[in-house]
Amino acid sequence: MSKGITSRGTDYSQWYNELVVKADLAEHSAVRGCMVIKPYGYAIWEKMQAALDKMFKDTGHSNAYFPLFIPKSFFSKEASHVEGFATECAVVTHYRLKNDGSGQIVVDEEAKLEEELIVRPTSETIIWNTYKGWIESYRDLPILVNQWANVVRWEMRTRLFLRTAEFLWQEGHTAHATREEAIEETERMLGVYADFAENWMALPVIRGRKTENERFAGALDTLCIEALMQDGKALQAGTSHFLGQNFAKAFDVKFTARDGKLDYVWATSWGVSTRLMGALIMAHSDDQGLVLPPKLAPIQVVIVPIYKTDEERQRIGELADNLLADLKAMGITVKYDDRDTHRPGFKFAEWELKGVPVRIAVGTRDMQQGTVEIARRDTQAKETVPQQGLALRVAELLEDIQRSIYDKARDFREAHTTTVDSYEEFKRVLEEKGGFVAAHWDGTVETEQLIKEETKATIRCIPLDNKEEHGVCVRTGKPSKQRVLFAKAY
Amino acid sequence: MSKGITSRGTDYSQWYNELVVKADLAEHSAVRGCMVIKPYGYAIWEKMQAALDKMFKDTGHSNAYFPLFIPKSFFSKEASHVEGFATECAVVTHYRLKNDGSGQIVVDEEAKLEEELIVRPTSETIIWNTYKGWIESYRDLPILVNQWANVVRWEMRTRLFLRTAEFLWQEGHTAHATREEAIEETERMLGVYADFAENWMALPVIRGRKTENERFAGALDTLCIEALMQDGKALQAGTSHFLGQNFAKAFDVKFTARDGKLDYVWATSWGVSTRLMGALIMAHSDDQGLVLPPKLAPIQVVIVPIYKTDEERQRIGELADNLLADLKAMGITVKYDDRDTHRPGFKFAEWELKGVPVRIAVGTRDMQQGTVEIARRDTQAKETVPQQGLALRVAELLEDIQRSIYDKARDFREAHTTTVDSYEEFKRVLEEKGGFVAAHWDGTVETEQLIKEETKATIRCIPLDNKEEHGVCVRTGKPSKQRVLFAKAY
Repeated sequence: MSKGITSRGTDYSQWYNELVVKADLAEHSAVRGCMVIKPYGYAIWEKMQAALDKMFKDTGHSNAYFPLFIPKSFFSKEASHVEGFATECAVVTHYRLKNDGSGQIVVDEEAKLEEELIVRPTSETIIWNTYKGWIESYRDLPILVNQWANVVRWEMRTRLFLRTAEFLWQEGHTAHATREEAIEETERMLGVYADFAENWMALPVIRGRKTENERFAGALDTLCIEALMQDGKALQAGTSHFLGQNFAKAFDVKFTARDGKLDYVWATSWGVSTRLMGALIMAHSDDQGLVLPPKLAPIQVVIVPIYKTDEERQRIGELADNLLADLKAMGITVKYDDRDTHRPGFKFAEWELKGVPVRIAVGTRDMQQGTVEIARRDTQAKETVPQQGLALRVAELLEDIQRSIYDKARDFREAHTTTVDSYEEFKRVLEEKGGFVAAHWDGTVETEQLIKEETKATIRCIPLDNKEEHGVCVRTGKPSKQRVLFAKAY
Repeated sequence: MSKGITSRGTDYSQWYNELVVKADLAEHSAVRGCMVIKPYGYAIWEKMQAALDKMFKDTGHSNAYFPLFIPKSFFSKEASHVEGFATECAVVTHYRLKNDGSGQIVVDEEAKLEEELIVRPTSETIIWNTYKGWIESYRDLPILVNQWANVVRWEMRTRLFLRTAEFLWQEGHTAHATREEAIEETERMLGVYADFAENWMALPVIRGRKTENERFAGALDTLCIEALMQDGKALQAGTSHFLGQNFAKAFDVKFTARDGKLDYVWATSWGVSTRLMGALIMAHSDDQGLVLPPKLAPIQVVIVPIYKTDEERQRIGELADNLLADLKAMGITVKYDDRDTHRPGFKFAEWELKGVPVRIAVGTRDMQQGTVEIARRDTQAKETVPQQGLALRVAELLEDIQRSIYDKARDFREAHTTTVDSYEEFKRVLEEKGGFVAAHWDGTVETEQLIKEETKATIRCIPLDNKEEHGVCVRTGKPSKQRVLFAKAY
């Protein structure tokens, strides 16, 4: 098959856009900014969901579902939240259409809502309005709830998975009796996200804290995981917010503590979205197509028969049947591609494009010699191996690929993390090499803004494992106690 | 705990409303007509989703995701569809809010959409508009896609789960090369729904066909499963539609057939929703609370210790640990309720209210005698049994409960299905006994409407296994070839 994907070197952005469409992951819909997630892309998202959902449940959380719509007035209740979220939103104003008599469908102006409804951009407000009815005493706490849902933010410039008007996500919303417990939860969930990114997505991440400027609207503290893409740009892959008592105060949610005193409830929220699909694609894939970590690949192994006669086809089919059974018994997802409408070369290219981690080809000579050809997608390495013991070998290979992809991404990140001590160097590294730049910063919003305007780099995070190190801000020369990580970002 | 649920005999409708809230399944939200599905209710829905999703995949379907919003003009493309769906809908007209300067959040009138967007009430239009890009030849068919999503229909009178403005559902949308294949798919999916209702929900259903009057807007044929609730009213539990070429024509989706000819694609759609939660609750529960079939119960077994001293508590706890391990090893979901904030009687009532199928109580005397008390929720029967071999006994009991609940509902339905031959009898049965009434009908929409106006009963379906039987319409005396099932319905 003709892939014709622009190479990363030619135009990374174009490569990404083409790959998402050509690998059948997603496409633009007829509605501006909204995407269609195609079956192959959705299968990856389902694997992500399943892994995350299990992690959430293993840490004591339950799922629930809250309304899609939020009354407009709710957004005015938390002052900083409204600035961050209640601007670019889809607004429902009417609840009826009618036929205008000439066959045209028009909005029925008489069916106007008394109060406009906002399609949720995030659910803190509607959820804390609900929690008010759930919480009376410390016995009702903690509430550890997650929601899988669609949300809408009216983005003007959209890109499939990375920035879409509607996207899918999960949002955890927890309520606690103490500040300490809420902070602990915020950190625990960041840990879950980092674990998922590294062990499932094979994506090394920096665990850090956002600066005040980059914090979630309404949070006292925002923790995040940041990953590096192959073009040297950073991508925020998940956030976990300590909300303090802000939403409890906004929605008047108090509880009677053990000591009988009334206090406002402490909150966290945390989320990851279909944006992770973008991160997954950009971190690992190459000019031939997707490279997927085996743990998230919808198809882990594909077997392609190469035959000339019907008899050969049948004999290879018998071998494949056994192999399929062996692999399935080991929990491996495998597809036998015996379509007679396409030639082997076409199939090889198609599964390469779709990132199937392991390809097994079986031809006439293989049948004579008791071998198969096995190819790994990530390194493109091929070898001829015995049919005997193949399932075990494939299982080991899948583990090796999962590890190798991670290592490669980690090595890339390490090679693209630069410590700089002057603004000249800062700008040069950003320009020539990209990646994370570890630099001293004076801690002010003003300097952060200035650097962003001058270089397009933002502070991705203050790493949680940062060491205290005295120095001077690369931009202002003012004193600094630690380095922070800058990068251009998605 | 004080349950204080109205009894079914006193007011069935009130009983349902109270039970849904008191058993922590769902509640009304601040947004008119939209519900909050609470963790306990959502856990049941998740079990339903998991079982259905597996059935869909086992029959060759994949999941995908399409936009929440549908351009208004799409609804004008399929003439009968628009009448059925494009009336009571949430309409998005603007995409921005702003601060009016005085701190009030108002809709930014300058940010008006060129074309209004409808929040999907169902997705045939946006999906067929998408399929146009996916289908060129017979090689691209069939497309077997399902979507799990939220939809909005602006209902004026709402009830938790049964009729809400926003609800959760799945909608399958398939595309086929031939009429026969599409009809086969329509029937296959009705079979999946019936299988799920009967084997998971323990809900006996009638498989049938809707009359023209009750057909899905845009379908050539609507198949359905109909269940009977304890108040003698019917509830439509799932529908599967043969859409013919209607949507393919509306969105110009043609394909090249094997013989080289161009033809429009054949379609089906099928769906079940959170309405099934209402059916589940109403079919089995009693005046003490929920009765859940073990296969869908979030907690299948609860163990309640009864102790006076800390030493007793510890000894019972050790027994419980072993029992928990044994039950979990058998795949049974079990909770050990050793809260010291509540007394055993309170716990018994709480788990009864929440429909946990099996309760095991362990007291001091049990510990001396090597026994436990085991109680089944459905019949309230209790017995004292040996601790030895308990896990196996519990597993068998769960199977027995699943079967018994089904049998009870089937017996109820059989006792409430009446064959009548006169309109007097028809009205009397509906009035005094309720349930399904099998009667002859002359086959016209007019008579169906007349009967509905006079009795509030509608034709629930023409059963698929109907025998030909000559008779005369109970209302008009005109000739009829078969009986159809009437009932008052949800």
